[in-house]
Amino acid sequence: MKTDFLLKPIGLVKRTEEGIHIHIDPPYRSALEELEHFSHIMIFGWIATGPFPEYRQVLQTNPPYAEGHTTGVFATRSPFRPNPILMTTCKLLRVDSIAGLLVVADLDMFDSTPIIDIKAYFPVCDRVENTYIPTWLEGWPEWMPEEGIGLMPHEMAS
Amino acid sequence: MKTDFLLKPIGLVKRTEEGIHIHIDPPYRSALEELEHFSHIMIFGWIATGPFPEYRQVLQTNPPYAEGHTTGVFATRSPFRPNPILMTTCKLLRVDSIAGLLVVADLDMFDSTPIIDIKAYFPVCDRVENTYIPTWLEGWPEWMPEEGIGLMPHEMAS
Repeated sequence: MKTDFLLKPIGLVKRTEEGIHIHIDPPYRSALEELEHFSHIMIFGWIATGPFPEYRQVLQTNPPYAEGHTTGVFATRSPFRPNPILMTTCKLLRVDSIAGLLVVADLDMFDSTPIIDIKAYFPVCDRVENTYIPTWLEGWPEWMPEEGIGLMPHEMAS
Repeated sequence: MKTDFLLKPIGLVKRTEEGIHIHIDPPYRSALEELEHFSHIMIFGWIATGPFPEYRQVLQTNPPYAEGHTTGVFATRSPFRPNPILMTTCKLLRVDSIAGLLVVADLDMFDSTPIIDIKAYFPVCDRVENTYIPTWLEGWPEWMPEEGIGLMPHEMAS
């Protein structure tokens, strides 16, 4: 029961001057077909840079957007968490399933981040009408901004 | 580069007559603190039942909600995909961080599904105002229904 699980990388993030590209490895490219009919996708990545063994031991953190406030890491999107899974919802700009290329408008992942899954954004599953958030997040946008959250590299780590 | 990644289970789904419970293992419970201030969370699970080695080879599928239509698995939320990661956005009803218990309103995962991550639902990251979906999904709700998507067990596999 308590054995570890194995994941395989299926692609890679390339941040270029032409935009943010996701390169999907050849064996998995046919899984991209028909994805272009969705406006948004959820990109699942793997934290492969940084002092990651240490990051896995951190269970509480002080989010940079909530000065003086300590929360459990499950209450954040921090890379400090037991399993190094990243997930960003992105606007999908272009798909080339033959070349294995996705171009997205925004992505909260560094260059060369390995990709482990892509899921289409289904409003019926992912778009919540009535939400609330903690007081330390008050004033944040109620929607994903049109061009994504536009994190700076130095903010990407928390 | 192409080595596999290791994940560890951090908890378990228990579907009971009292509702849908997520039990978080003792080493990870302090990561739940402050999570109760969010209305919704994203629950990441691992497909541990079914003929899963075969599921990992399937790259295209015929979604049951799109008769006669074949799509790549990345254009679906199917359990057929290269890596067996599940993700459901859920209304959070109760958190007991001491006992490691989450009670959620809806979850598209079977009983005993291992849990690999919990992330708070941040509207600024996850709530997209202007979306579109393929014609074969036309007529689906534009929002997550108040009590979730309420899949029947026989529908949970696709």
